Amino acid sequence: MRGAGVTTGSVGLVLARPARLLGAEPFFMEFIAGIEERLAEDDRSVLLHVVGAQDAEIAAYRRWAAGSVVDAVVVVNRTADDQRPRVLRELGLPALYVGEPDELAVPAVRSDDAGPVREALAYLLELGHRRVARVSGPETLLHTRARTAALLAGCAEAGIEPVVLEGDYSEETGAKLTAALLAADEPPTAILYDNDVMAVAGLNVAKELGVAVPGQLSLVAWDDSSLCRLATPALTTMSVDVHQFGVTVAESVLELVGGQPVAERWSPTATLVPRQSTAPTS
Amino acid sequence: MRGAGVTTGSVGLVLARPARLLGAEPFFMEFIAGIEERLAEDDRSVLLHVVGAQDAEIAAYRRWAAGSVVDAVVVVNRTADDQRPRVLRELGLPALYVGEPDELAVPAVRSDDAGPVREALAYLLELGHRRVARVSGPETLLHTRARTAALLAGCAEAGIEPVVLEGDYSEETGAKLTAALLAADEPPTAILYDNDVMAVAGLNVAKELGVAVPGQLSLVAWDDSSLCRLATPALTTMSVDVHQFGVTVAESVLELVGGQPVAERWSPTATLVPRQSTAPTS
Repeated sequence: MRGAGVTTGSVGLVLARPARLLGAEPFFMEFIAGIEERLAEDDRSVLLHVVGAQDAEIAAYRRWAAGSVVDAVVVVNRTADDQRPRVLRELGLPALYVGEPDELAVPAVRSDDAGPVREALAYLLELGHRRVARVSGPETLLHTRARTAALLAGCAEAGIEPVVLEGDYSEETGAKLTAALLAADEPPTAILYDNDVMAVAGLNVAKELGVAVPGQLSLVAWDDSSLCRLATPALTTMSVDVHQFGVTVAESVLELVGGQPVAERWSPTATLVPRQSTAPTS
Repeated sequence: MRGAGVTTGSVGLVLARPARLLGAEPFFMEFIAGIEERLAEDDRSVLLHVVGAQDAEIAAYRRWAAGSVVDAVVVVNRTADDQRPRVLRELGLPALYVGEPDELAVPAVRSDDAGPVREALAYLLELGHRRVARVSGPETLLHTRARTAALLAGCAEAGIEPVVLEGDYSEETGAKLTAALLAADEPPTAILYDNDVMAVAGLNVAKELGVAVPGQLSLVAWDDSSLCRLATPALTTMSVDVHQFGVTVAESVLELVGGQPVAERWSPTATLVPRQSTAPTS
């Protein structure tokens, strides 16, 4: 055990995701690289722990608090009925929350998920799309809910009704849910995905079914990566500067562990990068 | 500082790579997930540090040793004239080496890189290919050298002379070097890449240049991932069970930190997964 006032030099980050999903998504590695880059300037680094679910994440926090292993933790993937803020308060473990604004969770680096959805929808409406679908991430995540809510609101304004199907970011759900959407009597002419992996999987299903992208079907991914750039056709996506996101989180963490007031920060906002997977409806 | 005999519960892993390359490759996240899965059973976790180059990696080891931050480190990407074994011995920091066999570096989880290269080459020769090229990773890495040596030896046996160009695992070098190969008077009919990202980038260059894959050009990637499976055509690759590789490394690390003899272990061997990017020469 370390004595009071002695710092460990480490900031904890737990990723609670099935291991099979971790390798597929470039997001977290870029995010961690951004955090590390800034922390290294202060001789600090990330203690990364990868677990399968939120209860194991909470168990990790208890071990870390008991052993004084980290000076603070970064909490990602805020969920509805999130138990972590309460547990972390009880443990006295300083925490920086990342993601959707939530009045309970401060300090935080906040993200705007609604704005990018509005931007993507406006772009699709401009191209003439009226049958729009969304393949989302897990609905337990606050940022998934924020994106879905923004889509529903925007579609209501435009007088159209979107179809929303819940995926888990995996290739498998991206393929399965796209096949289900395309099998409908009136299939969508545009699909918005919540990450790059599901979008590329959806693109391949469309190809297999002989549905021309973007001739008959426009696809929009979220997160930009090799997957989006190297797909054929290259995928239009909501692109975020993930590395800068990590740097921003590190700035706030360094204030937190330094005992300074943590400035209000926002993550870089996702912006639309049009490529070859979207086109006007014919 | 912790007292003697007190364990930190952490195993250090430094990835010395330019941050821009980290997000692109699924390999390390899967590898870490495998290590974490096994370590978690012993209430241990990985302290991950991401730095730009090997001197920063060595600086991290010095900090970790001075602060008794980790019980052991996992050393990856062995290089020629590797300074790390000497530094780690001096620091008294227990280390597990991962990768190419090297008599200086024990304990280790060893990898056979030559065998898979021989397998891939035999497959291409069987398909009738005589003009074979390789787009490698950095030649400072021991496993890159082992792969190149195996290719040169196998080609010499077959009476052919391969072209070997050095890349850095990035999309950019994959594209640039493929373009250079295809611009030659007698371009290769088959290209072997050292990872998935360079192979997919190479595939896209071939498409742009109107070179049919696999009709005129066969491509073989290394490492299997969504990138390979979702490319069009899907890429033939040397596939490794990266998750199991991580679990195996964790087994050895747990013996090391437990003061037990570390059993000799080998990483799972890469095996050829034929897909649509390879075909007989016409």
